[in-house]
Amino acid sequence: MTEQHRLTIATRGRGSVEISDRISSIVKNAAVNAGIAHIFIRHTSCGLAITENADPSVRLDLETLLQRWAPDADAAYQHDQEGDDDMAAHARSLLTGTSVTVPFADGRLLLGTWQGIYLFEHRTHGHQREIVVTLLGA
Amino acid sequence: MTEQHRLTIATRGRGSVEISDRISSIVKNAAVNAGIAHIFIRHTSCGLAITENADPSVRLDLETLLQRWAPDADAAYQHDQEGDDDMAAHARSLLTGTSVTVPFADGRLLLGTWQGIYLFEHRTHGHQREIVVTLLGA
Amino acid sequence: MTEQHRLTIATRGRGSVEISDRISSIVKNAAVNAGIAHIFIRHTSCGLAITENADPSVRLDLETLLQRWAPDADAAYQHDQEGDDDMAAHARSLLTGTSVTVPFADGRLLLGTWQGIYLFEHRTHGHQREIVVTLLGA
Repeated sequence: MTEQHRLTIATRGRGSVEISDRISSIVKNAAVNAGIAHIFIRHTSCGLAITENADPSVRLDLETLLQRWAPDADAAYQHDQEGDDDMAAHARSLLTGTSVTVPFADGRLLLGTWQGIYLFEHRTHGHQREIVVTLLGA
Repeated sequence: MTEQHRLTIATRGRGSVEISDRISSIVKNAAVNAGIAHIFIRHTSCGLAITENADPSVRLDLETLLQRWAPDADAAYQHDQEGDDDMAAHARSLLTGTSVTVPFADGRLLLGTWQGIYLFEHRTHGHQREIVVTLLGA
Repeated sequence: MTEQHRLTIATRGRGSVEISDRISSIVKNAAVNAGIAHIFIRHTSCGLAITENADPSVRLDLETLLQRWAPDADAAYQHDQEGDDDMAAHARSLLTGTSVTVPFADGRLLLGTWQGIYLFEHRTHGHQREIVVTLLGA
């Protein structure tokens, strides 16, 4: 069986937004009982990743490292039409990726105790971000 | 339903080759109407990633950053049998990943407007690269 | 068809453990003949990645780079409750990712000749790591 759902998530600028509950709710109400949930974001300046859900300082530290890995306004960038965060956002997107896939069974995501699913907004301003969730299984 | 296809893509050395049209064509002609397309590359010195498809300077800047993250001929590398780009290519492959998964519906990939699917060749010379595309859905 | 399996892998501290044979065995004995194998790790301080399986120095060099990208005990980290390797492990997990997906056909994984599937332990001490393998296909 296959099901597809669309979500729009509003971000408030750079930082992470937890979407675990939104995905759990889709899985709980689905006709598919067990399989995988593929979560895809239709943009190149934000990303999806699974990380620690207990201490918010983990995600702050990830922001610190993302800024180090892909600095805003780096003198080496050629692409800067949309501002200092433009190319940095595309580079961060390469590192975080545009999709995550999570197994589920009995209508529940099989995330570990400390895992949360996060949308990472890589632009400095907020955006409306479109997500496609595809459930596959039996 | 499940379908599997094989592609061989010739690269011309380090840089990115867009394969969105090749994948779109497979999806358009498939018996599967909606689901996910899993695209897998059978090598450890190149990668697959989704990034911005409008301004080619984005991919040039990504090359600049990949060179910074995983420099050629780094003095710390032990693995260098195949030359200065050997270990750098494996490290770049870890960062870009070996597969991407894209949802589709009504025979069309659900990529965002600015998203393209790219093969990133991480070696300095061109290679024949084998890709397996698996479509799953209904 | 869909099948789900659980594995527990014991790690001996930072470094990589090849799990290709464990996954191949599941695929070989499965009722599903062709499709994808999704391998998911239920933790935020270790990761899964596909890399070169011939020369062990490749994985040593990847450790060197991971240490450079996400240093232990970095002065910038706020999150350090569990020690010097705590935040570094979460950051390494972001870069390696928490799942890999590999196509298979005729009961065999379609890995390239030089590709192996590895669990990367990012903590300095060993742990019991839980993995969920989901096979989807026909």
